Amino acid sequence: MTAYPSVGALSAPLVEALIRDAATLRLGVETTATGATIVDGGINVRGGLEAGRRIIEICLGGLGHANFVADNGFGRWRTALQITTADPVIACLGSQYAGWSLSEGEFFALGSGPARALWAKEELFGELGYKDEAQAAALVLETDKRPPDSLVSYIAKECGVAEDKLTLILTPTTSLAGSVQVVGRVLEVALHKAHALHFPLERIVDGTGLAPVPPPAADFLGGMGRTNDAVLYGGEIALYVEGPEDEAEQLANGLPSSTSRDHGRPFGEIFAGYNYDFYACDAGLFSPAVVTVTALSTGKSFSAGAFEPELVEKSFRGA
Amino acid sequence: MTAYPSVGALSAPLVEALIRDAATLRLGVETTATGATIVDGGINVRGGLEAGRRIIEICLGGLGHANFVADNGFGRWRTALQITTADPVIACLGSQYAGWSLSEGEFFALGSGPARALWAKEELFGELGYKDEAQAAALVLETDKRPPDSLVSYIAKECGVAEDKLTLILTPTTSLAGSVQVVGRVLEVALHKAHALHFPLERIVDGTGLAPVPPPAADFLGGMGRTNDAVLYGGEIALYVEGPEDEAEQLANGLPSSTSRDHGRPFGEIFAGYNYDFYACDAGLFSPAVVTVTALSTGKSFSAGAFEPELVEKSFRGA
Amino acid sequence: MTAYPSVGALSAPLVEALIRDAATLRLGVETTATGATIVDGGINVRGGLEAGRRIIEICLGGLGHANFVADNGFGRWRTALQITTADPVIACLGSQYAGWSLSEGEFFALGSGPARALWAKEELFGELGYKDEAQAAALVLETDKRPPDSLVSYIAKECGVAEDKLTLILTPTTSLAGSVQVVGRVLEVALHKAHALHFPLERIVDGTGLAPVPPPAADFLGGMGRTNDAVLYGGEIALYVEGPEDEAEQLANGLPSSTSRDHGRPFGEIFAGYNYDFYACDAGLFSPAVVTVTALSTGKSFSAGAFEPELVEKSFRGA
Repeated sequence: MTAYPSVGALSAPLVEALIRDAATLRLGVETTATGATIVDGGINVRGGLEAGRRIIEICLGGLGHANFVADNGFGRWRTALQITTADPVIACLGSQYAGWSLSEGEFFALGSGPARALWAKEELFGELGYKDEAQAAALVLETDKRPPDSLVSYIAKECGVAEDKLTLILTPTTSLAGSVQVVGRVLEVALHKAHALHFPLERIVDGTGLAPVPPPAADFLGGMGRTNDAVLYGGEIALYVEGPEDEAEQLANGLPSSTSRDHGRPFGEIFAGYNYDFYACDAGLFSPAVVTVTALSTGKSFSAGAFEPELVEKSFRGA
Repeated sequence: MTAYPSVGALSAPLVEALIRDAATLRLGVETTATGATIVDGGINVRGGLEAGRRIIEICLGGLGHANFVADNGFGRWRTALQITTADPVIACLGSQYAGWSLSEGEFFALGSGPARALWAKEELFGELGYKDEAQAAALVLETDKRPPDSLVSYIAKECGVAEDKLTLILTPTTSLAGSVQVVGRVLEVALHKAHALHFPLERIVDGTGLAPVPPPAADFLGGMGRTNDAVLYGGEIALYVEGPEDEAEQLANGLPSSTSRDHGRPFGEIFAGYNYDFYACDAGLFSPAVVTVTALSTGKSFSAGAFEPELVEKSFRGA
Repeated sequence: MTAYPSVGALSAPLVEALIRDAATLRLGVETTATGATIVDGGINVRGGLEAGRRIIEICLGGLGHANFVADNGFGRWRTALQITTADPVIACLGSQYAGWSLSEGEFFALGSGPARALWAKEELFGELGYKDEAQAAALVLETDKRPPDSLVSYIAKECGVAEDKLTLILTPTTSLAGSVQVVGRVLEVALHKAHALHFPLERIVDGTGLAPVPPPAADFLGGMGRTNDAVLYGGEIALYVEGPEDEAEQLANGLPSSTSRDHGRPFGEIFAGYNYDFYACDAGLFSPAVVTVTALSTGKSFSAGAFEPELVEKSFRGA
């Protein structure tokens, strides 16, 4: 097990800056009775695109950049997010992936971000051989409800940090910040699918991601639909991998969302077809539209998948 | 009246950095006899694109980012400015808008930037319910002349700051920095027109802007022409608004420059047609070519307007 | 001779940050017996795209930005580098140009970056009238071998700095960081060719550059091929110059890679045709595909050259 790079230590200054700039970013900040900090990313406050961008960089464990850029491939939806990282596997799987399932009573949320690497009880961490030892914990919860106090205490305890060293950031799917932070997972979903396809993670050297930013939807299901459509039908990633060329080609062919039986319809429709049971959806669906994998051993690159601009337009437009 | 966020306090570190890096950015810095600081952005010095970019971020009151990105929509004019803010109404209307008309003798200039919110005598500030209380004042003047000493003293007095806390930044329209900083107003002109159309400003939650950067023209009229053409025929914005869907649609339809009777010819030609009387031009002309407005209440988005790439090419090329 | 701006002083904090973040960026750091620092950018370590981006900003002497942006002009190769600077001639020619030829025994490498301006023995520095006087020296070496100790000592001595103030950054052409840093020279090669065409450097006021990022090749020749193809067939620059309009037009027409007798084939093929003798290649080949030069005196702009997207695709793909 390695504690390096420490996603907790690297993201701590970003968390402090988010709290310090909360009023400017139109975020809410609450200190709980037991000393934890809860940042409201868009439940009772406005938040915004910039808040979402900064939350992505926290989610990436301080190892990555999320930048707004211009993309001319999707009509009027020209604001896109570009993701780069110094260490994609640790940034995306060791930190950003929403792998910590948290529930208490009626409250349920998926936790993502650097605190996961302190907890490190997901099977994935054993495979990564990675566990963080930072003094502070930050966890992003995709939720429109404040978690109960006892759950907050539980998270701190599981992370092995004092409660006043725990920050929870709440990002509803219907908020601007929430929309942005989900789309910021365009590279992460590709790495997760590469893992599901049994591609050895230690062979993934670098990567980049790009996806158009959807406008927020009015309700949870709409938000789920658009943010997923942004990635599945508008997202693109590049991976640079070690190992034999044919395995890079196989990875490229296996990665795009088009390999899934569910591909081709708006995610909202697919989700409804499974009676809103997320785990009934084909797991292979959750990946970018277009991928390029470079085999560093030979320098050859393999691309697969295709954008679906009409589908993105229909989904984002909401008409 | 609220003093938060303080555009003066948030932009003060950016102003200090501009002065500290002035030689590198090829800007001139003068301290007046009474202690005010005057930054020459391109009158007797070269300045540059990067200086202009940083001046935009000062103009946005420290609440926004101006980044150069690549835009493939305008032929050889691929360097574009992207504007994002944490709080668009305060950033653009409470700070960036060129709403302070300053004159003394033969000197005339429009003042923009955070000092306006200290002065706060424009009617707009009453509507915004906003007045800054920062200790330092920075004002950007679109001019190719140094303002007279007495006017400098007047500005400090009107802002309620000591003269040694006042920084004036001069940006001629024909300079690189001046061209950039005008194009950086692509989102601001949209907000200003939304206000003129009586859309309630408190309902505007977030927004982004994008416009191609024109090369500087050789004279004032040419500079006016190109920087306006960049926005009117090449600019695009997105707004995210609260309230009924039909009002979002109405706003989208009302915003683009194409709604103006003057639309369709190079701004230089329009301006000449009104004998160079800026206020004779249709006020509705000053807005981006393309707008998308999202109604957060229903998640639907409405786009209107169109780019005029041939007009941009002709204007920028100067052939 | 002027010592301002000091590319050594301006880049020193970037060098310190690179060393501080080395483990995160997956760079190696060695202190030699005599106290110099050697940063391995991709010989025995992974490095990455972000490391390469930061090395470009060091190479530009702290005077420029290198940002990843999205470019829709080259199929699947959408990650592009955008270069902007506060002072292009000093940043690119006074610092970034690979003008210091270093050899000892079997070791050979071209040195680029701010230390060149301390050495300042290239004829170019006389013409620039520029010599740095910084206390610290940083030099980037395009090599896949560690330079011998005696050469390290020689470099420090030639720069007039103590050995513990010297940092050498090694970037193999086949590494991710190495690929990125070569493409980051898109503006520099244009300035160098402008100089070769006898355009007076003091008339070049500002400029920008943009080029697609190639995937690393498996060997040195492949890396040379792709990084050059990225610039020659996919690169674009804009220059803003003083002086007569016809000289700006002449510069635009003279600059693009298409003016070279060698233009039109992959660089790897051209290089092989000259038996891998770099100096046998037409020097006029090394420049961007597309250039736009603006004559600030009249505001007119002149574009020349054309992209070769099929050639870029074939080169980058490696199929």
